[in-house]
Amino acid sequence: MFSLSIRVYYQHTDAGGVVYHGTYLDFMEAARIERLHALGLDVAVMAEQDEALFMVYALDVRYHKPARLNDRLVVTADIASVGRARMEFDQRILRGEEELVTAKVVAACVHPRTLKPVAVPAVLRAKMEPATEAKVEDGEKMKKGTR
Amino acid sequence: MFSLSIRVYYQHTDAGGVVYHGTYLDFMEAARIERLHALGLDVAVMAEQDEALFMVYALDVRYHKPARLNDRLVVTADIASVGRARMEFDQRILRGEEELVTAKVVAACVHPRTLKPVAVPAVLRAKMEPATEAKVEDGEKMKKGTR
Amino acid sequence: MFSLSIRVYYQHTDAGGVVYHGTYLDFMEAARIERLHALGLDVAVMAEQDEALFMVYALDVRYHKPARLNDRLVVTADIASVGRARMEFDQRILRGEEELVTAKVVAACVHPRTLKPVAVPAVLRAKMEPATEAKVEDGEKMKKGTR
Amino acid sequence: MFSLSIRVYYQHTDAGGVVYHGTYLDFMEAARIERLHALGLDVAVMAEQDEALFMVYALDVRYHKPARLNDRLVVTADIASVGRARMEFDQRILRGEEELVTAKVVAACVHPRTLKPVAVPAVLRAKMEPATEAKVEDGEKMKKGTR
Repeated sequence: MFSLSIRVYYQHTDAGGVVYHGTYLDFMEAARIERLHALGLDVAVMAEQDEALFMVYALDVRYHKPARLNDRLVVTADIASVGRARMEFDQRILRGEEELVTAKVVAACVHPRTLKPVAVPAVLRAKMEPATEAKVEDGEKMKKGTR
Repeated sequence: MFSLSIRVYYQHTDAGGVVYHGTYLDFMEAARIERLHALGLDVAVMAEQDEALFMVYALDVRYHKPARLNDRLVVTADIASVGRARMEFDQRILRGEEELVTAKVVAACVHPRTLKPVAVPAVLRAKMEPATEAKVEDGEKMKKGTR
Repeated sequence: MFSLSIRVYYQHTDAGGVVYHGTYLDFMEAARIERLHALGLDVAVMAEQDEALFMVYALDVRYHKPARLNDRLVVTADIASVGRARMEFDQRILRGEEELVTAKVVAACVHPRTLKPVAVPAVLRAKMEPATEAKVEDGEKMKKGTR
Repeated sequence: MFSLSIRVYYQHTDAGGVVYHGTYLDFMEAARIERLHALGLDVAVMAEQDEALFMVYALDVRYHKPARLNDRLVVTADIASVGRARMEFDQRILRGEEELVTAKVVAACVHPRTLKPVAVPAVLRAKMEPATEAKVEDGEKMKKGTR
């Protein structure tokens, strides 16, 4: 399973003595990008060659427990689904066994200049595991069915 | 109606040419704190004297359209409800008439050192408008009713 | 005299209970941009129309005293000199009469795509006050003389 | 030799298409903390047990070339000297052989609550390599001589 390990520095914390709530979004972005890298995908290359940029479109975050200075965190980034022009990630931030933050992040695939929706690049689709691909197809069918 | 005006600088943007998705959380925190200031409430004083710290506990954000460098934005922070140990804000980020971002932000009221839930300070409750107070009481009753 | 007023929020602080040292750079960028706006100059317009982007090239910062949560700060941005392809700012961050941070910031004027040095736009030069223009000419002469 | 490897994400960049100048300070803070960790030193423990907090006191940064999205950078943090109540770091940010940023960072050692200068903890001094210790002693003597 993919995960990213991060240590908490002063830059991540606030005067409450804990990690600032916005910082966890940076940790999660880092994990999403490293997740794609682990699949052989590079967001800078996708922006230039495939003219596809992923922009966060919806965020649903729950903060269960705070992280503190010098904590060693693990950040996950599971690809929950890939639609025609969007990806959905389920993310968790853990300290050992403790779940600190959970989030659902939906990213829209847009053209880097116009920022209009475009199809998720074929190169990304091709890298999805069979399991996820199955989910994707089901998801797409379901959507067609309900529309 | 309270709102905060913010201009977009380079520090707020990313290489996609638009405001970084995490930056809007900073804009919204600024608006919440200025909203409390407009009511005569100071978060630093509440942390020290009232031993009450507001920590973001849940975030639900929708990004409708991106903001760009040098845009002049307006950020709202309506207090949707005040519970025994939490506050709920409805927030919007606008560029003129365009709605760019909408969010529901739930902040838990905790003790600054232990970070355990504590009651919302009386000074804050006292400042709530009658309209909101009514909502609060109803909200509390409803919760009691359903639990 | 131009200055920018800023209130310190949680997002600006760190677990040391004071403003994070990197945050002051954001305050200073804000003041530089607002300083240019006060002269009728817009960095986004300069990047697009004049193909001139200011990138920080050198920073010399002294931190005298820390700012804390909820402090109201004043940030200055004096244009110390304008060279052929660079601007130099003298900046101060104050809390009332107390000087918290002082800095010299040198920005290079570059082409937005190639990032190669280009001449400072005429529109910016034209807006400089006579006093500063005099300094600029002297500065340029002095540099020629010493090289 | 110690160094920290960092990949550039969207969160680090700005609308100029390059890494925001303030972000390099975060990279350098990360490298300093990891440098201390490599010596077996933990800033959170030093703040609590040794009542010693390192606050950046002076920064001298030169930006030679910009880093871009997805670059893989290497950040160094050499301890240039350790004084009675301060440490000085020489830092470099590299992309392969290219030197992008160089900096001298002086951190003052202060008490976590009063923020008044205190002596560098003995545990830190003890961990310094003989080579650096020699430099330290010389530095201290020189300072005494010149004062």
